Formats: sequence, structure tokens, C-alpha cells
Amino acid sequence: MAEAPRRAYLSGVGMTAFGRHPLRSLSELGREACVAALRDARLSPTAIQAVYCGSALGALIQGETGVGQSVAWELGIHGIPVVNVENACASGATALHLAWRDVAWGIHDVVLAVGVDKGVMPKGSVLKVASSQIETQLGDIFPGLFALIAQKHMQTHGTTLQQMAQVSVKNHYNGSLNPLAQFNKLVTIEQVLNSPMIADPLTLYSCCPSSDGAAAVVVCSPNWLHDHAARALRLAASVLTSGDYDPMRDLTYWDSELRAAAQAYASAGIGPEELDVVEVHDAFTISEIIHCEALGLCEPGKGGPLVASGATALSGRIPVNPSGGLQARGHPPGASGLAQIVEIALQLRGQAQGRQVAGARIGLAQIMGGSKGNDAQACAVHILVNDHSV
Amino acid sequence: MAEAPRRAYLSGVGMTAFGRHPLRSLSELGREACVAALRDARLSPTAIQAVYCGSALGALIQGETGVGQSVAWELGIHGIPVVNVENACASGATALHLAWRDVAWGIHDVVLAVGVDKGVMPKGSVLKVASSQIETQLGDIFPGLFALIAQKHMQTHGTTLQQMAQVSVKNHYNGSLNPLAQFNKLVTIEQVLNSPMIADPLTLYSCCPSSDGAAAVVVCSPNWLHDHAARALRLAASVLTSGDYDPMRDLTYWDSELRAAAQAYASAGIGPEELDVVEVHDAFTISEIIHCEALGLCEPGKGGPLVASGATALSGRIPVNPSGGLQARGHPPGASGLAQIVEIALQLRGQAQGRQVAGARIGLAQIMGGSKGNDAQACAVHILVNDHSV
Repeated sequence: MAEAPRRAYLSGVGMTAFGRHPLRSLSELGREACVAALRDARLSPTAIQAVYCGSALGALIQGETGVGQSVAWELGIHGIPVVNVENACASGATALHLAWRDVAWGIHDVVLAVGVDKGVMPKGSVLKVASSQIETQLGDIFPGLFALIAQKHMQTHGTTLQQMAQVSVKNHYNGSLNPLAQFNKLVTIEQVLNSPMIADPLTLYSCCPSSDGAAAVVVCSPNWLHDHAARALRLAASVLTSGDYDPMRDLTYWDSELRAAAQAYASAGIGPEELDVVEVHDAFTISEIIHCEALGLCEPGKGGPLVASGATALSGRIPVNPSGGLQARGHPPGASGLAQIVEIALQLRGQAQGRQVAGARIGLAQIMGGSKGNDAQACAVHILVNDHSV
Repeated sequence: MAEAPRRAYLSGVGMTAFGRHPLRSLSELGREACVAALRDARLSPTAIQAVYCGSALGALIQGETGVGQSVAWELGIHGIPVVNVENACASGATALHLAWRDVAWGIHDVVLAVGVDKGVMPKGSVLKVASSQIETQLGDIFPGLFALIAQKHMQTHGTTLQQMAQVSVKNHYNGSLNPLAQFNKLVTIEQVLNSPMIADPLTLYSCCPSSDGAAAVVVCSPNWLHDHAARALRLAASVLTSGDYDPMRDLTYWDSELRAAAQAYASAGIGPEELDVVEVHDAFTISEIIHCEALGLCEPGKGGPLVASGATALSGRIPVNPSGGLQARGHPPGASGLAQIVEIALQLRGQAQGRQVAGARIGLAQIMGGSKGNDAQACAVHILVNDHSV
């Protein structure tokens, strides 16, 4: 990808509470998040020049297509390009990446990215994700795959059950300080280890939930900022990539993530040691450990000791998932990538209340979606900076 | 939208036969179309820098997400941005629009757009498109909506059943000359009028089928063309917009289409009188009549007399749907927008065999998707030009 000719800024963020919303439609959830983001940006819906809407499960579970247009309709937005995107758990981050492209290349000046999903399914219903694939039919669904990854990480790097459980403990603590998180209860290492086994070694509290919810952000150009006194954050890097598929590869990392991280750091001119706050895709406890390694927050293989040391806690050297992450904030797949951005924005603007990371100025969000040939089908990394000088 | 800083070219096209492919997966169909497009462009898959994949029904009917990544996997494409897009029947055209943006704004030099769907459903299964919407629950599904549109057009403009039937007769004739079309049989006006009534006045042969199939195109930059001797066509305009929703509006046209057409003509510096060949979204016979009016191929309200006069036949003044259109080529929703582009490309390159429009140099493709507030949720118009001078 060529270098972007101009900067792009995040001028507004918003999200719904994550959790169970059985009586609310996708478009209603999306509307709430967008209204919050537009108010935050002090923008009228009519200022928006394009909309990207990420939803991973809208069609699959709700039987709904055209979700972005339904959200736009609710907002009174019409007559502009609206594109629905699906990249599994990276759908929301993909919507942001496309919005960033539009602004950074001068196609548009003000673009709305929204992510929405209803992941809570009626008891007994079967999720059909990738059900036509031979891997799925043979039982290679996400908990099984990540259990293998965890086993291999334990074997290779000596990662312990206690270290993995500490991810869940930390993120549930953070979630208890986030009023929009799905879970507000603390859990202990013992509770994580003793919760029902899903796929050895992953117990119930080692896995994120399926949730309902929406998140939205407004991306705008430097020109536009000069006319509007917004508290804008600079999008210093936006990287989207797909996997380097290799069924024979080591399970303990993803090439796509190493590549996305390297590209993002190079693009931003920022190294991992400069980050103040990070959100990663903790679909399972082992995931956060591997992402910390891939993002360079510690040495390869040392993600377990990192979390056990408290370095990634709210008060630690480099707080990870201050929002509670997928584990406690919840996980509506299409929305999670943008909910991460909402959290980073609140942190960089000093608005994260009880979970505020003191003096946070540079933040990173990482998410991935889908799986194929031992890599992710999509991996996105975004870096945000509060320049205090816009 | 700002003006694009550079030109973009279509360097390769390909598609599968449209029809019933019960034993073939979405990724297999997508692969076949992409391999054809890459061969046509004389390109290795590794030259592709980004992939956009349009599918409207993949998740809904097949329970498949990440279709673009599955297609890329089949092609050996990895490590680049892959984005799945859904904009109902305009999904494939949306994929092309995003590919065009990437190239025209210098983000990438070589981008693949693919559209794929399996629309053929087992007997008795219920399509859930928009099933959560109140309009759908009240019976406002597409055949019903377009029956109302046809009735209103007949009342307002005097359009006749025979004129509408002539659309189907013409398109089935064209389809009989297209080896990749789903239907190769001729129909008569009497057969169209006497086929089973679906929603008065629309009979079975007034409606397009639901089909399986895929289509793909390669978009590339001028720089890249200088290094590769491709038979490239210039993408003179690529417009994507959403509707100006107004539930009280006249049913006999769509504002989004008038706007998209005006933008496309302005962007290309080309008027409707300069077009040599046109593909439109003939989901129902009345649709083609209205699209001919909206695109300025005749006066408003005169689309019925236009088709009856033979002007839009293969040998007429301005041939419309030489491929057979949705009516005869078939309609896998995510693929149709790109199948139109494949047809325009073959026509402009003089490769349309028995259905060749003599001397065709400038072509237009129009498609729309979804419905809300009496307008389309998405409308796309593309104009292609054979410059003979690349």
C-alpha cells in the first residue's frame, strides 16, 4: 500500500452498553452508537459523506442484510455511499480502515464507521460460521483451535494455567470499572480455573462471551478539523491484512499479526515502548498473551510472565484491555474492533473515569477475524495519538 | 466525493456459467471467475494487492462468512487486505467501486473485485432477507413492490403489458446467444403473459431467477499498464450511492438512480447519446423500462415504447442487456453487478461473439440493491471506454 498523502483524525466516538439486548434491532443499536459518536464530534448526520458498517453475524443470525443502510435510515443519512463489510471479528476495524482510507487519500472529509452485531443466540441454536468448510465439519471450531494453541504455547514457552487465568482476572477487574461492559463482577484465578471446561485447557471464564451491541466512530480530515473545534485524535496508523496461510506453521503466533504490527509501527513512526495503553483481541485468555508478544510488549514467549507480573494491569507499565476486553466488556463481533477504538479514545482524552490510565497519549488497538491455514483471515492494527496540537 | 487524481483501467474479466451449481461451493465458484479474470489480465495471483468480494446471500443462505478470504485461499493470494462487502444486489458493483477507488486514488495499483452467490434455494425454504423489517412482515417483498411499481407506471405513463413482456422476450433472445447464460430458450410475448402470475401484473417470465455463479474483474493503474500489454478498458466513471428515502414519493422512478446516472455522466464527460451498449438491473421487466428512462436512453415515461420499438434490441439504436440481463443470464445477486461489467468489457473488446454490438466503444452498467422508503439502498453506475490508445 502507498503512503497516505494526508492525516486523518478521530473526531467522535460512541457505543452502546454491551450485553443482552433481545428486544432491540441491529439498526436501533447501530443508531444509538452513531448518535453518540456524532454528538461527541458535534456533527449533524448530514455532514457525513460515506458510511461503512461492519457486521459479522447480522445475516447469519438475524437474517438481516443492508444493516448499514438501515442504520443510516434511522439517522436520516441518505444519498451517500453506504457499504456493509464483513471480516468476521475484524468487521468493525475493517469499517474503520476503509473510513481512514477515504479520509487519508482525500476521497472524503467526514466518514462514519459503525459496527453492530447481536451475538446472543437462543439456547440450542447452532452457529453456522464456516459450516461448509471441512475444518469446521471435523470439529476445528474456535474453542478447539485455541485450546490447541494454548497447549502448544504451554509446551513451548512454559506458559501456566495460572498465567492464562490472570488475563481473565485482570480483564474482569477492568470491566467492573466500565459502565458499558457486559460483566461487572470480579473473578479469581480459582474461579477461572474451576469454571466448566470448554476445551482443555480453556474453561468458561477463559473464553469471551457472545454479546449484543454497537460502536461507532467519526473520521475526519485535517481541513475539516480547522473548521470545527473537535477534540480530535490522530489516526497514526491503520493496517488491515490477511493471513500468510501455512497449515504446517507453529501454532503459537500469527504471521499476519507480526506483519500488521510491524507495518503499523513503521507507518506511525512509533515503537511498542512508546505505547501508553493497548486493546487486544482477547477472545480467549491465551489470545491476549500471544498478542502482547506479537505487539512487542514483551519478548516472544514471555506473555504469560508479563500478565502475571502485573505489567499489563491498569496500574502497570503497559495496561492492556483497560475496557475489560472481549472477556468482560463483551464481544458483539462486528462491534468489538470499534469498541476498542472507543476505549483508546476515551483513555487518550482522559475520560475513562475509574479505569483511566494516567497520562495516556499513545494507544494501539489490535483485532483479528476468522481462521484459515493456521493464520487469521483478517488482522487489523490501529494506532491513535493525542497530539494536543490540532 | 472529490475528483479522482488518476485513471483506472479494467485489465481482465471472467465469470462462471450462471445457473444451478448445487455441488460447488462459493469459494470454488469465486475461484473459477478469478482465475479467468487473472488469465485474461495475464496476471499472477501474487500481483494482486487487495481483494474486494461481494456476496449478498453467502451468510444468509449458505451460512458462510469470510467468502473473500476463502476465494483468496483457493487462488494462493495471502497477506493483503481482503474485504467482504454486502450491498444486496449491488454487492458486486460495490466491490468494483472500492477497487476503483483504491486504484484511482493511488492506494494500490492492481486490485481484484469478485462477486459470488448461490441463490438457488432448496424447495420450500424461506428467504429471510429483511425479515426483521416491518415492511417485509407486512408483505412488502420484491415481487409485491415491483408489481405496485408496474401498476403505477402503467397508470401514469400508459405502459402496456405487451411492452413489459417485450423486455423478457428481448433478453431471452440475447441470453440464447450467451453461452454462460442460465436460460438459452426463446420466449414469446404470449408465453410471458400466460406464464403463472407472481404479483399482478408480473408473471413468472417477468421476474429474474435466483441463480448460482461468480464474476470477477481486475482493476489496475496507468503506471502498471505501461509495464503490461493488457487490452485494458478505461473506467471512466464509478458511482455508488444510497437512496433519498421518502415513503411518499412517486413509485415510478428512483432518485438514487437519477443522481447516480447524472454523477456518472458528469464524471465521464459522456452523455447517454454517446453510449453504444448498456447493461441494466432487469430484476423485473418493469425495472428495465424505468432504468432506460433514468439513464436518459429515452424521455421519462417512454421506456415502454422504447423497448417495443426495437431500439434496445441487439441490432437497435442502443442495445440494452445484450448478455440476456438478469432475466436470462441469471441472477446470483452478489455476482450480477460484475457480470454486467464482464459483458460490457467483452462488447467493447469485440469478443461478444453472436451477440456482439458492432463497433461498441462506450458502455454503461447500472445496478441497484435493496429497498427502503421507496428508493434503493444502494445504486451503482459504471461507464467503460475503449480508448484504443492506452
